[in-house]
Amino acid sequence: MEEHKALPGWKQKLHEIIYEADTPSGKLFDIVLFFLIVLSVILVMLESIDGFDDRYHNILLTLEWAVTIFFTLEYIARLVSIKKPLKYVFSFYGIIDFLSTIPLYLSYILAGSQVLLAVRAFRLLRIFRILKLVKFIGEASQLQAALKASRTKIAVFIYVVLILSVILGTLMYIVEGDESGFTSIPRSIYWTIVTLTTVGYGDIAPQSNLGQFIATVIMILGYGIIAVPTGIVTAEFARSNKKGEGDDGYMVHVNTQACPNCAAEGHRDDATHCYNCGHPL
Amino acid sequence: MEEHKALPGWKQKLHEIIYEADTPSGKLFDIVLFFLIVLSVILVMLESIDGFDDRYHNILLTLEWAVTIFFTLEYIARLVSIKKPLKYVFSFYGIIDFLSTIPLYLSYILAGSQVLLAVRAFRLLRIFRILKLVKFIGEASQLQAALKASRTKIAVFIYVVLILSVILGTLMYIVEGDESGFTSIPRSIYWTIVTLTTVGYGDIAPQSNLGQFIATVIMILGYGIIAVPTGIVTAEFARSNKKGEGDDGYMVHVNTQACPNCAAEGHRDDATHCYNCGHPL
Amino acid sequence: MEEHKALPGWKQKLHEIIYEADTPSGKLFDIVLFFLIVLSVILVMLESIDGFDDRYHNILLTLEWAVTIFFTLEYIARLVSIKKPLKYVFSFYGIIDFLSTIPLYLSYILAGSQVLLAVRAFRLLRIFRILKLVKFIGEASQLQAALKASRTKIAVFIYVVLILSVILGTLMYIVEGDESGFTSIPRSIYWTIVTLTTVGYGDIAPQSNLGQFIATVIMILGYGIIAVPTGIVTAEFARSNKKGEGDDGYMVHVNTQACPNCAAEGHRDDATHCYNCGHPL
Amino acid sequence: MEEHKALPGWKQKLHEIIYEADTPSGKLFDIVLFFLIVLSVILVMLESIDGFDDRYHNILLTLEWAVTIFFTLEYIARLVSIKKPLKYVFSFYGIIDFLSTIPLYLSYILAGSQVLLAVRAFRLLRIFRILKLVKFIGEASQLQAALKASRTKIAVFIYVVLILSVILGTLMYIVEGDESGFTSIPRSIYWTIVTLTTVGYGDIAPQSNLGQFIATVIMILGYGIIAVPTGIVTAEFARSNKKGEGDDGYMVHVNTQACPNCAAEGHRDDATHCYNCGHPL
Repeated sequence: MEEHKALPGWKQKLHEIIYEADTPSGKLFDIVLFFLIVLSVILVMLESIDGFDDRYHNILLTLEWAVTIFFTLEYIARLVSIKKPLKYVFSFYGIIDFLSTIPLYLSYILAGSQVLLAVRAFRLLRIFRILKLVKFIGEASQLQAALKASRTKIAVFIYVVLILSVILGTLMYIVEGDESGFTSIPRSIYWTIVTLTTVGYGDIAPQSNLGQFIATVIMILGYGIIAVPTGIVTAEFARSNKKGEGDDGYMVHVNTQACPNCAAEGHRDDATHCYNCGHPL
Repeated sequence: MEEHKALPGWKQKLHEIIYEADTPSGKLFDIVLFFLIVLSVILVMLESIDGFDDRYHNILLTLEWAVTIFFTLEYIARLVSIKKPLKYVFSFYGIIDFLSTIPLYLSYILAGSQVLLAVRAFRLLRIFRILKLVKFIGEASQLQAALKASRTKIAVFIYVVLILSVILGTLMYIVEGDESGFTSIPRSIYWTIVTLTTVGYGDIAPQSNLGQFIATVIMILGYGIIAVPTGIVTAEFARSNKKGEGDDGYMVHVNTQACPNCAAEGHRDDATHCYNCGHPL
Repeated sequence: MEEHKALPGWKQKLHEIIYEADTPSGKLFDIVLFFLIVLSVILVMLESIDGFDDRYHNILLTLEWAVTIFFTLEYIARLVSIKKPLKYVFSFYGIIDFLSTIPLYLSYILAGSQVLLAVRAFRLLRIFRILKLVKFIGEASQLQAALKASRTKIAVFIYVVLILSVILGTLMYIVEGDESGFTSIPRSIYWTIVTLTTVGYGDIAPQSNLGQFIATVIMILGYGIIAVPTGIVTAEFARSNKKGEGDDGYMVHVNTQACPNCAAEGHRDDATHCYNCGHPL
Repeated sequence: MEEHKALPGWKQKLHEIIYEADTPSGKLFDIVLFFLIVLSVILVMLESIDGFDDRYHNILLTLEWAVTIFFTLEYIARLVSIKKPLKYVFSFYGIIDFLSTIPLYLSYILAGSQVLLAVRAFRLLRIFRILKLVKFIGEASQLQAALKASRTKIAVFIYVVLILSVILGTLMYIVEGDESGFTSIPRSIYWTIVTLTTVGYGDIAPQSNLGQFIATVIMILGYGIIAVPTGIVTAEFARSNKKGEGDDGYMVHVNTQACPNCAAEGHRDDATHCYNCGHPL
């Protein structure tokens, strides 16, 4: 039997603040983090606008440094307040956290890594973790369940759409010449998907009569095909709605605690041990 | 206990005409108002067409003055025939009514406020109040109920779509250069939403092979994602339809009366007191 | 009591051939008519292609004359074989039949009525009458019933979409200048509907940052709004499907007979008198 | 009574490997085939890109020859290991297999048949046969069943959409002149379908006020019409879901065997004779 050593007091405290949202200080931390993430993503956006960056370069840079330092400290705190830091480092959110911190440092070490700075926009992914706070997590999990249940059907659907796109794209490549923009089969497939999904940029458009006729068929096909994923998801929603009415075991009531050992989340309200590693909560 | 003083006779009469649609004169007033609103919005549209305004400037101006004077008188009448005028002034419809009246006067006082005249098109919002007349209010309230019930799910959905757009937009900004139109991250996000929602203007379109590949993925994503709101709303409609069959308490039967004290609307047919302030109806 | 005089023998015979599809000759007539209509519409299309018309003008004209003469004879036959010709003349199909016959004659009388020739394409509407033949009329009537049941809801929906378009269109007119193509409010409304319905031509596209932001909101709105008509129709289909399973009185079994007196169609299989005028069938 | 002669041993063996996926060698064969098909389609795509073909022409040609020779051997093996080769040759997959093999040979015999090489992309259709392997065949068959059940309704729908497109397209041809791109009725119909399906390329766009107004109506129509196929398919899915819950006879459990006599597929797990020709399995 594995023995679970408790974390020392201050680490325990830090763990509660950073990883959970049950205590007031934990909640405050999450709210501050939320606004810093949003701020930092807005900074990245503003920097990318040429005129704006020229005028306010220093303000933007200062703010960026402030955010980066906060994220660095937070990353270190996350490392020390968890029992298995390596597991965290290589987890999905661990990697995102690392990528959120590193770019500004890198831009000083590596030359020409300016473009890399845009990677900071992925910080936005961190927001999903804070979503724990938000009340509509239950709704989201119902959405997720419905999508999960119809996963295979949607996979079959996308598979058929892709094969269809390759074949119709090739057909259009044969029918239309280079002058209409159908310069290669991959480009024709790109056009077919643009048409089938009813996006229709118009950067490539068939010119010949036969090409326009085939395009027409593809459009009506796409118009009809869109009914399939909708039908799948809707039927699933209707079913999950009905289920939800009959028994109330459908929705799992979880809280915002994270295991201090392995950082697994989504524990039941009445859980006393981590469902993942058995560590006491 | 608060005492509700009745309005004096002529104010009571005016209140009935302006705020309600139960009496013949109240109905007539609403119909006249309806046509004046539509007429005034058409005037605003015609004015904005350069050639048209040049030729018929005087006719348009005269008609606009007629409408403005009518709206001014109506606004004053609304103020005097209600017990708590301030509450009306700062209510949603109070502000709309004010904004419907003021622009023409302002254009004489302030120079360069020509563009402001277009604000008059918001007069169209006033029509929603007159909708009380129309018989299909019941259907609308069923629509509203279904949308309300799926509100949180739709919020989650839009939230996920927005985060996705920011991340995919940034990705496209990194992949595509300035020459294809992806000049800044906000512009790339704009393009991502244009693509994800299958609108597809084509003013910005990816040129590189990798960019077109990612665009393809975004399109198929958008094509599948559209199933989600549809599924949510449809399942809700199906449920509300079923509900409506079983019990008939789903639809609240309301009439077109408005409280003479606080102007609250949507009272039950059998109501004797305002549900909002307790004033007798 | 009104007395129903039977038509003389040959008129009765002609009526059966032209107006009904129960007898072999009636069926043959409908099939011939079907192909002539399709042929004549194809002729109209081919004529409109400049190069094609130049080369084969005489063949096209000869065929067009053949079709027109056939339609003329048919129109006369329809007139003589019905008891109340005037009622036929001013009925929906009576007008369509007349418009299908007249354009070629007119083009010789009136100068500059060339464009009028395109009116002949409306002949296609005549096909709906021959649809009586086709077996899937039952399915169509189920579709129709579902659409009819959700009529009011769809009307409310379109009404709200239109008001929204006017307001958002005006907003865009204020925000965007003339140089992006938003030259007048009606044109801005046109753009708003192009965007809201996710068509997205790209002939007009916002250039300013604020304009692109509002456009983004409109797109997401349109993306969500499309769920509403789908939800309405789907819930209706689901209901009518369920109904159809329970009782079989939902589908009315009709035959292809038309009343010899008033040309009303869609009589029940077991009908002995016209449901419209009481004439024996 | 017809006597079913068993195939000689090695042919029996070959049949099992090529046509079935129950044995390990049969499974391996299918996996190899799968990757060769995907490889060969990728080759076709790469060849179509001008720059790529110039640089790696020899590698591409060698790989293409390898694939073609494999397909040729496979085609011969399929011929000899089946009892009624002619039936296979003229079956759907027989023709696809033949078309997958022949183009490279033809390009040496016939001059100017380069374009014909693109036909090789149709090899992708062969993948559908290998799909037998994949576990989600059950889901696919449910999708298929739902689509089949709503086939007639969808046919009616497409029929109405087509007639509508012809009529609206003609109307736009009359309203808009040549200068906006509406140069012929077929082209106008093409534009109408582009608009009605919300694709909206923008290569042709109405310029006149009346034209833009009609376009607006068409868009809203298309926006509403999209609800119909969705409604049909969704209601069907919901029904088939419900059915699947009640009785479990809905899904037919089939295996991947093919009849050694007639190559019919989709036999029940417990079948001992071919459902098509009665040959013992």
